[in-house]
Amino acid sequence: MTRIIMHGCNGAMGQVISGIVQKDEFASIVAGVDIVDNRDNGYPVFSSIEKCEIEADVIIDFASPKANDKLLEYGINKNIPIVLCTTGLSEEQIQNIKKASSKVAIFKSANMSLGITILSKLLQKAATALAAADFDIEIVERHHNQKVDAPSGTALLLADSINEALNQEYNYVYDRSGVREKRTKKEIGISAIRGGTIVGEHEVIFAGTDEVIEFKHTAYSKAVFAKGAVEAAKFLAGQEPGLYDMSDVVG
Amino acid sequence: MTRIIMHGCNGAMGQVISGIVQKDEFASIVAGVDIVDNRDNGYPVFSSIEKCEIEADVIIDFASPKANDKLLEYGINKNIPIVLCTTGLSEEQIQNIKKASSKVAIFKSANMSLGITILSKLLQKAATALAAADFDIEIVERHHNQKVDAPSGTALLLADSINEALNQEYNYVYDRSGVREKRTKKEIGISAIRGGTIVGEHEVIFAGTDEVIEFKHTAYSKAVFAKGAVEAAKFLAGQEPGLYDMSDVVG
Amino acid sequence: MTRIIMHGCNGAMGQVISGIVQKDEFASIVAGVDIVDNRDNGYPVFSSIEKCEIEADVIIDFASPKANDKLLEYGINKNIPIVLCTTGLSEEQIQNIKKASSKVAIFKSANMSLGITILSKLLQKAATALAAADFDIEIVERHHNQKVDAPSGTALLLADSINEALNQEYNYVYDRSGVREKRTKKEIGISAIRGGTIVGEHEVIFAGTDEVIEFKHTAYSKAVFAKGAVEAAKFLAGQEPGLYDMSDVVG
Amino acid sequence: MTRIIMHGCNGAMGQVISGIVQKDEFASIVAGVDIVDNRDNGYPVFSSIEKCEIEADVIIDFASPKANDKLLEYGINKNIPIVLCTTGLSEEQIQNIKKASSKVAIFKSANMSLGITILSKLLQKAATALAAADFDIEIVERHHNQKVDAPSGTALLLADSINEALNQEYNYVYDRSGVREKRTKKEIGISAIRGGTIVGEHEVIFAGTDEVIEFKHTAYSKAVFAKGAVEAAKFLAGQEPGLYDMSDVVG
Repeated sequence: MTRIIMHGCNGAMGQVISGIVQKDEFASIVAGVDIVDNRDNGYPVFSSIEKCEIEADVIIDFASPKANDKLLEYGINKNIPIVLCTTGLSEEQIQNIKKASSKVAIFKSANMSLGITILSKLLQKAATALAAADFDIEIVERHHNQKVDAPSGTALLLADSINEALNQEYNYVYDRSGVREKRTKKEIGISAIRGGTIVGEHEVIFAGTDEVIEFKHTAYSKAVFAKGAVEAAKFLAGQEPGLYDMSDVVG
Repeated sequence: MTRIIMHGCNGAMGQVISGIVQKDEFASIVAGVDIVDNRDNGYPVFSSIEKCEIEADVIIDFASPKANDKLLEYGINKNIPIVLCTTGLSEEQIQNIKKASSKVAIFKSANMSLGITILSKLLQKAATALAAADFDIEIVERHHNQKVDAPSGTALLLADSINEALNQEYNYVYDRSGVREKRTKKEIGISAIRGGTIVGEHEVIFAGTDEVIEFKHTAYSKAVFAKGAVEAAKFLAGQEPGLYDMSDVVG
Repeated sequence: MTRIIMHGCNGAMGQVISGIVQKDEFASIVAGVDIVDNRDNGYPVFSSIEKCEIEADVIIDFASPKANDKLLEYGINKNIPIVLCTTGLSEEQIQNIKKASSKVAIFKSANMSLGITILSKLLQKAATALAAADFDIEIVERHHNQKVDAPSGTALLLADSINEALNQEYNYVYDRSGVREKRTKKEIGISAIRGGTIVGEHEVIFAGTDEVIEFKHTAYSKAVFAKGAVEAAKFLAGQEPGLYDMSDVVG
Repeated sequence: MTRIIMHGCNGAMGQVISGIVQKDEFASIVAGVDIVDNRDNGYPVFSSIEKCEIEADVIIDFASPKANDKLLEYGINKNIPIVLCTTGLSEEQIQNIKKASSKVAIFKSANMSLGITILSKLLQKAATALAAADFDIEIVERHHNQKVDAPSGTALLLADSINEALNQEYNYVYDRSGVREKRTKKEIGISAIRGGTIVGEHEVIFAGTDEVIEFKHTAYSKAVFAKGAVEAAKFLAGQEPGLYDMSDVVG
């Protein structure tokens, strides 16, 4: 049984994680930390991490970047591994995380979905076999109409993963309108679709002579990322100091 | 029974049309015209249209644009309607076609597929209902790796058709990379995928709050366009002078 | 501004509807009814409908079927239209609803999604055009692994809608394994996919000679049905007595 | 340069293979065999295999099963490997092929597509990772309206391949209508869609909690299988005696 401290327990993701852990027979949340304390979570909630004296195996962090320094200090002192899911960290904080990882196990990943991580590994094998057989590679991603960046970080992660397997020989093309040229062999076209409330879909297309192979990942809710965080926590508890990511969890 | 003269009968599309008409109990090819005469088609083949004295109800044209002037002259003199499928006509020739259509029925269409034409009409109804319910609109097209233009003419035809139903209030966006801005309500994103030998796929996506409606057309071979030409021929035989397109055929 | 009484306001769907109405500038919830009163909704909550004296234009009902009789009585007495979304009603209750609808406007629909309703109407037009051009029709639906019935009610609703447009000439086929016969022209194959937590996807496939046209609806959350209920409420306020469904709302 | 004898060179598949080899710089057809001799293939055509004295590295067979015995004899005597693509062989002939394979290299595969073979291997890895993470597995295949068997041999090949990776613990379910029970964890649902002229599409769906991963193969023409035969021929030339299939080619 993995005992978790949920850092940022009353935020949106903290609550989703609480719900997921409740149904998990191999994990439980033993304490929460949040500056807001407005509900009954079934576990004690502290207003900051240093006030928490409850024994635990791992911390999941979905709190504000402001709380990051104290969190690292706490993890090192108590020797409790940390699953860091907070975004928007400064360059200095990222350096601090690297330093801290020599003393305690820290997990930090560009994508929190188990499915995307498994897909990314399969795509490397697929790309090696299919590029050799002269298939062209394209990526299409779809997200909601509030997203400002394009293409998505995950689309780039998948493209980089494929490109790594293909000796970095490919370049990425985002726009073909008005060019009036055939695509080259060594390009990966990446298209970004935006609309409605689509959580996130990624499709990798390998197109050959009269046959096409497609790999598609669809996220239906943010619970996907919460579930990934819980799996990461179960993996990280008891690990040696070091920096880990989702590909270590999938193994 | 519609009697057809196949103009350009020994080219790739002429042969596909010959095969389709052979299985059609309501049409038959009574004569062919081609500068090449290298096979037994089961019907007489003339080296140019003016040498053909065989009675017919309609001409299907998939020959060279060079032969266009004589073809129009022949159609007017004999009062035989013409299904024009040749591409690459000059601006002058297009003007000649318009003039000729006051004397004989002429068919000319940006897209020869029955399916695309039916889809285009449905999309106008869909767009009116779904745009009012705040759905965002996106188009994704896929074609083979030899295609130089992007987006495809058919993707633009579909977008224009939707935009017409929405009072021309939408503008088209081909690239979102590096912009770092949310999509606007009044845009249609159009993405072009290129790879392998994909004949042609068009997908129109309406994305709303927690629901998405998609319309997709897939062409598996050029026979789709040949079949459209034969349907157009059957429709055009006996029509009054005028300029017709695929939406008249679908009715 | 449509004033709504939310009947069953503290249940899962009642809460989703509360959230949606909060962001809707043309509607507001003026009162709730629930036997449970465990949260601050920002509007008064009564333990049963007859205790509610607040003026309103329409009631949305997502409560228990047990409460249905009193609800109908209240609607008739106060002349307030009712959007009935409760499932599991007895045959007797359904008869009561029909009787009540001669005195007050009542909305009751097999499917609450705006998108499915719009799609269903488009499919009738598509089927008429495409069946005439010899396209075969197939339906594939996907739902979560807890669903016991197959095919889904919505898949049957779509099939019935298509069949109605085609003069009821089609029959439905659910299994082709072991039959070793070609499909017939006048059949609609319906397949049911089950897995994970898929909310609901419906795909209608028209397959012709070398071309396929697909129509697909994807629901990403139950908010789709909540949103449909709110639209129905806005439509129903002020209507004459009678029985209405989602196709009246879409218009 | 692999020198090929095309056995059954004037049949439909023989002609498609001729066209593919013409564009392949690493292979050429040096002789053909066919009882019909009605066209100029650019290589000599013999009326039966034993009349062919031309030196070659490999034989591709798309002829009648009747010609199988002589073909095996010829391959053994001349020590030329054989890519067997003919279907409808008798049980006795299959036994003869096994015997012959102790003397000469013979290729025989349930599916001739490179893409399907590569996909099948990836699916084994995917299934191992995703079944462990509690994803449900479903297969949907689509074929033309003339196909009598369902599900397709390739759908079963993919299911068997997945099941092998999962210790044969899964059973296959073809029909869920009228059962009114939840799917079990250890089942693979297999659905067969039939319509139009669809060449062949196979989709494997892994559905988990709020995420879905799909793998899809689309064949656009029978050239896919011809291309697979040519790749198999290039692989088989020079191999030791034995029985090979497409998974050896993909390696």
